[in-house]
Amino acid sequence: MKSAFVLLTLCLTLNVASQTDADVLKTIYKQSLTNGKSYDWLNHLSNQIGSRLSGSLGAEKAVSYTKAELENLGLDRVWLQPVMVPRWIRGTKEYGYIESALGKTNTVNICALGGSIATPALGIKANVVEVKNFEELALLGKDSIQGKIVFYNRPMQADLILTYEAYGGCVNQRYKGAVEAAKYGAAGVIVRSMNLRLDDLPHTGSMTYDDLPVNKRIPSAAISTNDAELLSTMLKLNTNTKFYFKQNCKQLKDVQSYNVIGEIKGSEFPNEYILVGGHLDSWDLGDGSHDDGAGVVQSMDVLRLLKTSGIKPKRSIRVVLFMNEENGLRGGKKYAQESKQKGENHIFALESDSGGFTPRGFSFDCTDASFNQVLNWQPLFKPYLIHYFEKGGSGADVGPLKTESNVLAGLRPDSQRYFDHHHASNDTFDAINKRELELGAATMTSLVYLFDKYGVNPISNLDNIKK
Amino acid sequence: MKSAFVLLTLCLTLNVASQTDADVLKTIYKQSLTNGKSYDWLNHLSNQIGSRLSGSLGAEKAVSYTKAELENLGLDRVWLQPVMVPRWIRGTKEYGYIESALGKTNTVNICALGGSIATPALGIKANVVEVKNFEELALLGKDSIQGKIVFYNRPMQADLILTYEAYGGCVNQRYKGAVEAAKYGAAGVIVRSMNLRLDDLPHTGSMTYDDLPVNKRIPSAAISTNDAELLSTMLKLNTNTKFYFKQNCKQLKDVQSYNVIGEIKGSEFPNEYILVGGHLDSWDLGDGSHDDGAGVVQSMDVLRLLKTSGIKPKRSIRVVLFMNEENGLRGGKKYAQESKQKGENHIFALESDSGGFTPRGFSFDCTDASFNQVLNWQPLFKPYLIHYFEKGGSGADVGPLKTESNVLAGLRPDSQRYFDHHHASNDTFDAINKRELELGAATMTSLVYLFDKYGVNPISNLDNIKK
Repeated sequence: MKSAFVLLTLCLTLNVASQTDADVLKTIYKQSLTNGKSYDWLNHLSNQIGSRLSGSLGAEKAVSYTKAELENLGLDRVWLQPVMVPRWIRGTKEYGYIESALGKTNTVNICALGGSIATPALGIKANVVEVKNFEELALLGKDSIQGKIVFYNRPMQADLILTYEAYGGCVNQRYKGAVEAAKYGAAGVIVRSMNLRLDDLPHTGSMTYDDLPVNKRIPSAAISTNDAELLSTMLKLNTNTKFYFKQNCKQLKDVQSYNVIGEIKGSEFPNEYILVGGHLDSWDLGDGSHDDGAGVVQSMDVLRLLKTSGIKPKRSIRVVLFMNEENGLRGGKKYAQESKQKGENHIFALESDSGGFTPRGFSFDCTDASFNQVLNWQPLFKPYLIHYFEKGGSGADVGPLKTESNVLAGLRPDSQRYFDHHHASNDTFDAINKRELELGAATMTSLVYLFDKYGVNPISNLDNIKK
Repeated sequence: MKSAFVLLTLCLTLNVASQTDADVLKTIYKQSLTNGKSYDWLNHLSNQIGSRLSGSLGAEKAVSYTKAELENLGLDRVWLQPVMVPRWIRGTKEYGYIESALGKTNTVNICALGGSIATPALGIKANVVEVKNFEELALLGKDSIQGKIVFYNRPMQADLILTYEAYGGCVNQRYKGAVEAAKYGAAGVIVRSMNLRLDDLPHTGSMTYDDLPVNKRIPSAAISTNDAELLSTMLKLNTNTKFYFKQNCKQLKDVQSYNVIGEIKGSEFPNEYILVGGHLDSWDLGDGSHDDGAGVVQSMDVLRLLKTSGIKPKRSIRVVLFMNEENGLRGGKKYAQESKQKGENHIFALESDSGGFTPRGFSFDCTDASFNQVLNWQPLFKPYLIHYFEKGGSGADVGPLKTESNVLAGLRPDSQRYFDHHHASNDTFDAINKRELELGAATMTSLVYLFDKYGVNPISNLDNIKK
């Protein structure tokens, strides 16, 4: 039986060698859409394991599960890379309300931001100063802010087509809001959730205190967009509107965790590495299906789909499931650091961390020459409606692998629904469409196949480019 | 106040006249994403009115509502075009089960196909013949089929990227299944739902008896994909598996209904018409949010967005909300017939009837010369990720308007999730994303703007085409 299997694999491999690239891509997409594993894996990760905040039991289970599943694929090597990660816990559910000048209260939907300190045990109640940005905050100054709760309420810009750009234009309120407000003596910070939609869900996400002394730190939390609208309206009607919130989240000691890594050894250039990855950790409110369960299972399926499509890579292909992207990036940094120490040459690294929606293309962080090489391949993707090939960022976890000559890339799925779910309790498996997820896995596999076959070409060849 | 408004409109209009096309498209998209009405209209249509099967109270309410809303837009003319429509009613909820050879029963999720006759009052129970297509049916012949229930179980092809193509490859089972099976004396027909996903929802849709005499007609119904899998498995285990179903749907007499039409009169070429439309009727299981509430409200918003963007059309722009697309196409046919009688020159007609998902582009039914003209405009759409410009079909309702020189087109949104909802009880407002809907309305408005500005150019100008 085993020799029959070897023969079959050999036939498939020889067959692929003689196929056109268009035929190979067709095989890859067909494999993913009719015989993919990504959806089943995600079902387990989301519904059997659930949320995977760094240092949590869920994260630990996810390490064991994905390692075991990679081992089942018969890769050349599967291992864990130890990495110490921060452990922040939310504690009991947060509670908050708006108190009108007449003393009437409206409960709001609120969640602590990741990394925030707790409020005092009895909570904080204070007057509220609403601002749109740090410039307004500075103009108000200490006299207006001291002892109050700063309410950041700059909405995501609806007329930007790429929702990531709208997120980029807002997220400093969440990440830096507390440290900025603390400068003026604020008692706490409330942020409008990073969500383009008006709804009732608070969205968490990381925040920083930078090097603020512990006794200067103030608690920060997000409220839903609907509650942000309500609070803003009430403040317009009466500036004496107060806000109360209580949270008992906590930063514990760092704990041991792992990146999960699998590898197919290259047949011709084993020392040239191609990496695909997503991050295994998630926030704790939903089950992290889009962020980034989708990227994890798609990356795992890239190696599997190469095999089931009969492709025998010339270069070494690695899947890396990074730990702690959300609140520390320790996994991404550790991987890059060890890789550098070992002198590993990563010619191409591809991250999927933008949700499991219909793939539209890729964003490339590379030289013009490499980008031109990629544009040559663009027509191969047209039958799959993959059209977005732009220079830009790649992904947080692969970013530290950047060199002068390599290519980093990020999968770019349709982004319209992403921030409806991002870091909120509705980032759950039911929001995933099986075909969309599988199309993403096939799109990633196709690009990996092409980079494996042709390598990274440092020579610009503008004449061949189809514009 | 009124003169101030007129002045403002004039300024906007003059301003637009001096803008580049790229600037105008930017204004249109911004208007739709920050000040669109499509989502609010759809909320009313879906949640206040609900399903709109031809001849139903819902359809009647939808006619009144959309007419009133178009009147609120201050168009030059809004009117109803009378059209007689078939009235089919589902009656009491269908019931069906699989009975194993040992007499154990499994209830299935089943719905009558639109246009089907009822079963006898006590239902039909019979042995089952599973086939994949009409060829298999013919090979089995009368001896194997007489008195049995024919079960059509050809799944939608998962490896086709455009799900409409997968639908096209399967839908003859639903539409013609009964008339084909009746030739061989079948007692009834069960069809696997047109759904790429495995789930529990039956999907209805139209079927025909052609010219089959009334006494030869047999009832036909759809079962969910999960139930189709179960029935198929049980038949493989034991061919003596039986199926029972009961439905009391009925075709009533035709009733009076209407197409709803609104018009902005063209300033330079009032006798050249540009039409945008969707269909007002829906199936009865969900609320028809994707099929085709989305197309209705997007089409309405095209006229409104032209106004709010300060565009004064040179040609007459009509929105037509067609009645009875689903089970008769009477509205589309009536509109084309009267338009022909009046000698109206429709240079361009655009339909949105493929769901309210993220728009990807258009399919064009036109001459090569006109298609080349459109390809010249393609770069204008790139910032909005609109990339799909292909020759192909347009839409059922605008199809009858085809001439040798005009351009028909269909909006092509992302199709991956469409058949999860199509004609099923989950075609509901919660499956609509506001931004995706608004992007569709803006994309349609942009193309209407360009055809209004430049007209349909019958001269091929291949040199200018950016390939």
